[in-house]
Amino acid sequence: MSQFFNSFYRDLDPYTPGEQPQDKKYIKLNTNESPFPPAPGVLDIVNRKEAADLRLYSDPELKPLKAALAETYGVTPQEIFVGNGSDECLNFAFMAFGGDGMAYPDISYGFYKVFAALHHISSDIKPLNADFTIDPSAYFSIHKSLVIANPNAPTGLCLSLEQIRRIVEQNPDHVVIIDEAYIDFAEPGSSAVPLTGEYDNLLVIQTFSKSRSLAGARVGFAIGNKELIRDLETIKYSTNPYNVNRISMAAAVEAVKDTAYFSECCQEIIRTRKYTTDALEALGFTVLKSQTNFLFARSCDITGKALYQSLKERGILVRHFDDPAITEYNRISIGTREEMETLIRTIQEILSA
Amino acid sequence: MSQFFNSFYRDLDPYTPGEQPQDKKYIKLNTNESPFPPAPGVLDIVNRKEAADLRLYSDPELKPLKAALAETYGVTPQEIFVGNGSDECLNFAFMAFGGDGMAYPDISYGFYKVFAALHHISSDIKPLNADFTIDPSAYFSIHKSLVIANPNAPTGLCLSLEQIRRIVEQNPDHVVIIDEAYIDFAEPGSSAVPLTGEYDNLLVIQTFSKSRSLAGARVGFAIGNKELIRDLETIKYSTNPYNVNRISMAAAVEAVKDTAYFSECCQEIIRTRKYTTDALEALGFTVLKSQTNFLFARSCDITGKALYQSLKERGILVRHFDDPAITEYNRISIGTREEMETLIRTIQEILSA
Repeated sequence: MSQFFNSFYRDLDPYTPGEQPQDKKYIKLNTNESPFPPAPGVLDIVNRKEAADLRLYSDPELKPLKAALAETYGVTPQEIFVGNGSDECLNFAFMAFGGDGMAYPDISYGFYKVFAALHHISSDIKPLNADFTIDPSAYFSIHKSLVIANPNAPTGLCLSLEQIRRIVEQNPDHVVIIDEAYIDFAEPGSSAVPLTGEYDNLLVIQTFSKSRSLAGARVGFAIGNKELIRDLETIKYSTNPYNVNRISMAAAVEAVKDTAYFSECCQEIIRTRKYTTDALEALGFTVLKSQTNFLFARSCDITGKALYQSLKERGILVRHFDDPAITEYNRISIGTREEMETLIRTIQEILSA
Repeated sequence: MSQFFNSFYRDLDPYTPGEQPQDKKYIKLNTNESPFPPAPGVLDIVNRKEAADLRLYSDPELKPLKAALAETYGVTPQEIFVGNGSDECLNFAFMAFGGDGMAYPDISYGFYKVFAALHHISSDIKPLNADFTIDPSAYFSIHKSLVIANPNAPTGLCLSLEQIRRIVEQNPDHVVIIDEAYIDFAEPGSSAVPLTGEYDNLLVIQTFSKSRSLAGARVGFAIGNKELIRDLETIKYSTNPYNVNRISMAAAVEAVKDTAYFSECCQEIIRTRKYTTDALEALGFTVLKSQTNFLFARSCDITGKALYQSLKERGILVRHFDDPAITEYNRISIGTREEMETLIRTIQEILSA
């Protein structure tokens, strides 16, 4: 830290992204990326003509992408905010709606506590139940905004739409943020987007990073009442008006339009998730019932950390967290069927070594 | 504004980007974009293979780009920060170093006052001299950080390196931020980057948006003492670790490497700037001595606003500001020689109508 660093930020404990070691080629099951390339239309649009147009600023209003999203999600463009990844949407939502503090689960996306610290927003951290589920009633009438990842990460568990509705109804004076980064892998009807038309205090955030295979493009979006969206736009135009670059916007438009490819990729992940869950359970693992593109699993034969390290030595990266409550678990992204077969074989080798 | 909007941000007056009207095809001389496409290597790298890799997160450490920049600017990678446009670099610098307030000229990049308002940083706004030059001594021993665009916008005027050095030496207890968005169009030897090795309180910010024809890619960077850079990284990893997307990073690497194309584009802009300056002066305009890729010019025959409007009606966009101190001027980006010939012809028509 320099002697000049603003004391307001001196105590920050930044987020640690998943590792990207470059020493050899790994099977990467540690950052919940898609094993499939983006839709064919994305591959077509990333071309020399778009490259030549990079001399021009991007559209700060992101009109084509908002139009495509509006059609897909049955809302108006005025009910959509687009960010440089869903992290930017979340950051702006913390800024816009966190004035009275923010509640969130103790085991969840690790960035929530970082955003809170960054903006000196007080955190009201709610413990999960012993089975890692979220207790909706803990979020009733709390007189502050709240954020829940649904499905939650790294547990992979999902609240029902009726549970979300109750939370929204019980907090009419504050904003309920539902972070649906993994919703496309959950049971149909789980998304809270349809509720945004009913409640003016509900903001749903999604991302192109997982189900739409565009982690490297950095595109996320929020859907909510148009006044909530206008607040997010106020923050954006006071921070970085050209927040999403030209090619990422063009790529995202193509990704949204190809509903067949999107659906096919999600279904394949769900099938491979079933295969991997069954195989891990056959090896004696406890596997939480995942509604996401990752599994959260523990073995009774090897510690979470030892399994993580043994897999890494053998060229497979998974995500391990040091938090004592979950240190026996690993978060394992769902890759291709072939990658998961290699994972299972490798775990068998490790356990029998 | 929603009823839920954080009162901390209620008084924000966001930045207004240059207009992008879609009603017809304009000659766009209003946002200081390059009239030339990015380097040939950029057009090559924006391809299907890179598109397929968009499924993977970008490198949060931006290693290849930092390596290329380090080689070009004669610094180490640890002395470089890369942002989602130089706006993000500026925003993070305001956060990291603005704790005791921020000084800047009254006529300059309009975003400085927005960043200050966003973070509730007190602004110490220094008037320009009557001839629109900056008085360096106004920034001596001010006991707060400061930001100066050099060359300044929208005036196009440039302080000398010795003037910058004096300002840096006179503020050893705070950070001097030199925003060099337009430096590549200034006289050789104007950049303060070589001074960053001498002073631990100097941060120089540049952008790929102008001289490297990548406005739509959103890439900017800061060069300074490695402790200053580490502070910016702390803010970044607490905000948006994957701030720069994959294709923009790959494009920026190619743009930096092609020094010949870069130099050729800058020289052509400088030649066309000379042509346009001479032509406007021949039409009775006062034109400030530009060290940038734009001109700041006024006519004694027509108001600034009327000229802006007349040009827009005829399909040419320039940038007009309502600030009374500069309302008789327009900021005119340097396009291709052909575009500038059209501009001059159109102004002749307007003046003789």
